[in-house]
Amino acid sequence: MILVVEDDQLIRTVVEETLDGGGFKPALAASGEEAVALLKHPDGKYRALVTDINLLGRIDGWEIAKQAREMDPAFPIIYMTGAAADQYASHGVPNSILLTKPFAAAQLVTALSNLLNESSPTT
Amino acid sequence: MILVVEDDQLIRTVVEETLDGGGFKPALAASGEEAVALLKHPDGKYRALVTDINLLGRIDGWEIAKQAREMDPAFPIIYMTGAAADQYASHGVPNSILLTKPFAAAQLVTALSNLLNESSPTT
Amino acid sequence: MILVVEDDQLIRTVVEETLDGGGFKPALAASGEEAVALLKHPDGKYRALVTDINLLGRIDGWEIAKQAREMDPAFPIIYMTGAAADQYASHGVPNSILLTKPFAAAQLVTALSNLLNESSPTT
Amino acid sequence: MILVVEDDQLIRTVVEETLDGGGFKPALAASGEEAVALLKHPDGKYRALVTDINLLGRIDGWEIAKQAREMDPAFPIIYMTGAAADQYASHGVPNSILLTKPFAAAQLVTALSNLLNESSPTT
Amino acid sequence: MILVVEDDQLIRTVVEETLDGGGFKPALAASGEEAVALLKHPDGKYRALVTDINLLGRIDGWEIAKQAREMDPAFPIIYMTGAAADQYASHGVPNSILLTKPFAAAQLVTALSNLLNESSPTT
Amino acid sequence: MILVVEDDQLIRTVVEETLDGGGFKPALAASGEEAVALLKHPDGKYRALVTDINLLGRIDGWEIAKQAREMDPAFPIIYMTGAAADQYASHGVPNSILLTKPFAAAQLVTALSNLLNESSPTT
Repeated sequence: MILVVEDDQLIRTVVEETLDGGGFKPALAASGEEAVALLKHPDGKYRALVTDINLLGRIDGWEIAKQAREMDPAFPIIYMTGAAADQYASHGVPNSILLTKPFAAAQLVTALSNLLNESSPTT
Repeated sequence: MILVVEDDQLIRTVVEETLDGGGFKPALAASGEEAVALLKHPDGKYRALVTDINLLGRIDGWEIAKQAREMDPAFPIIYMTGAAADQYASHGVPNSILLTKPFAAAQLVTALSNLLNESSPTT
Repeated sequence: MILVVEDDQLIRTVVEETLDGGGFKPALAASGEEAVALLKHPDGKYRALVTDINLLGRIDGWEIAKQAREMDPAFPIIYMTGAAADQYASHGVPNSILLTKPFAAAQLVTALSNLLNESSPTT
Repeated sequence: MILVVEDDQLIRTVVEETLDGGGFKPALAASGEEAVALLKHPDGKYRALVTDINLLGRIDGWEIAKQAREMDPAFPIIYMTGAAADQYASHGVPNSILLTKPFAAAQLVTALSNLLNESSPTT
Repeated sequence: MILVVEDDQLIRTVVEETLDGGGFKPALAASGEEAVALLKHPDGKYRALVTDINLLGRIDGWEIAKQAREMDPAFPIIYMTGAAADQYASHGVPNSILLTKPFAAAQLVTALSNLLNESSPTT
Repeated sequence: MILVVEDDQLIRTVVEETLDGGGFKPALAASGEEAVALLKHPDGKYRALVTDINLLGRIDGWEIAKQAREMDPAFPIIYMTGAAADQYASHGVPNSILLTKPFAAAQLVTALSNLLNESSPTT
């Protein structure tokens, strides 16, 4: 399951279909609070996080990624943003990927595949 | 928009459909002269160049890439060639990718996605 | 032609369809013995190996990859395994990729595209 | 000038001599407050930051790096730590290097050289 | 401690001095049997292996590396060889480095530094 | 032998001593014409090129590198320049490194070591 956090329903659906087309199983969250609750849930089995930066509520994408990495230091992270790309160098976590909106479907699928392939014992 | 330069109409259509399938918006040029004019046009908003090497006319793919890089030193470049691959080491530009024909559709889509993802502020 | 070695017919068909969807031409082998015979056949023109590790017969995926590399030191290799991933660091060949089952279709297509793109004169 | 932040005088001297031996010009700070003041000083011309994590005072190495990256998103960062390495995945900035103490002199010199060479227009 | 395996005493001394000059602590073994015994010794605390390929005795460098990786799948490995470089693609372990003799002192120090820096939680 | 091309005698001596300190054997040329003659000489056995860009005479560093790559497509190339760095993206050859003057001795030694280590059969 790939955890997708996006408060814009239209984009959320596009991301869901894109991941589905690549053979991934997306799980959707509409806010940072919901995303963190899902990550911390004992039944959760997420392999990667794909998150928007600016979200409704108090928890933004930078914070979700930090909490995911505190639980698993190798957790694959992809940020999607239009407005907040210039904050990546100071607010992003290491070994993550930032996609600047708008991006093509293949950019997301390739970024996610590369992170998952690298997090296997290959590298 | 991804600028595609290819003088063989059949291959041009295949590349167009391949990029379209990955969610990219291809813009097509049939010659080096047309490609350079499009790159220099003030309305042009191209994110990457995908170019054949041997073209009708005086401007080949090596030259188009050089002119694109003079306008933008980080411009993503993909060369496609069968016959001219051995010239890449001396005529290619740095941080570009050469695809040797014939290549699978996924090789082009992955190469382009990787270059665009790296040219984001991630790296 | 991409040589696919997998003794589970269901997975073999899924891999075949995945590669086909990326524009690759898969050739299928059901055992290590068959795979090695195909690699050594003078008419064979394989560009990469995608192999399961645990196979019926005496030749496993680690051994097929070694024989492929003895014929061509730059031959692209992808291992697919669920149970044998922890042996990769000591039994895998250099510059190969291991995919841990289950993996998404896009992970295989991206891994294969990256290996083929790197084995071109680009890098 | 390479800005080195370390509150242990003995280690600070070892790092200074190591950088000097590699042909770098180290500038030394004993606290996070001093480091941030130096980075913000209009006469400052620092090319990279080499910082300990746990420092006397309120500003730790994670925070110095963030402030350096807010001023320059491509600023090369090296963290040195024994105790705080497990926080790197959630508190480090992207495209930085963490050296776990104790490390050999050559590890620091090579890490710094790699970051500076990559931040040139090469990549 | 860096475990160095080399049966030629002259080269062993050169490697020892080279590592020492980079701030590494070399431990020397003259045969594969001695190297494996050192790696398996409960008091041993080795951070990396630097090994010749062709050694007196039954255990060669390829085999030492495999045994080291079976104990620790992330163990940094550097092979040094003149005659056996063409076997690397089929006999080497993944994520290792092969140095072809003769090599400059800096090549060994840089290779070792890069492997140790990558095996930290940075990547 | 590492071929060093630099028309400033002072810098040439510094580069010579830097390479010598890393265990490399530098061969010096003061002009592009001399460099190309050395590269083409049948007795020449050069492993890499380290070249300034702006040189007296008609042949600049960009051109020397192209001619070296036409003879050997995998030839390791390092450019050193202060004034011409912005031309690298369009005039450099692929898989080369550009060092912006002034650089530390360790940056040159590390860049050269990395290129030589990668050009071995490791990658």
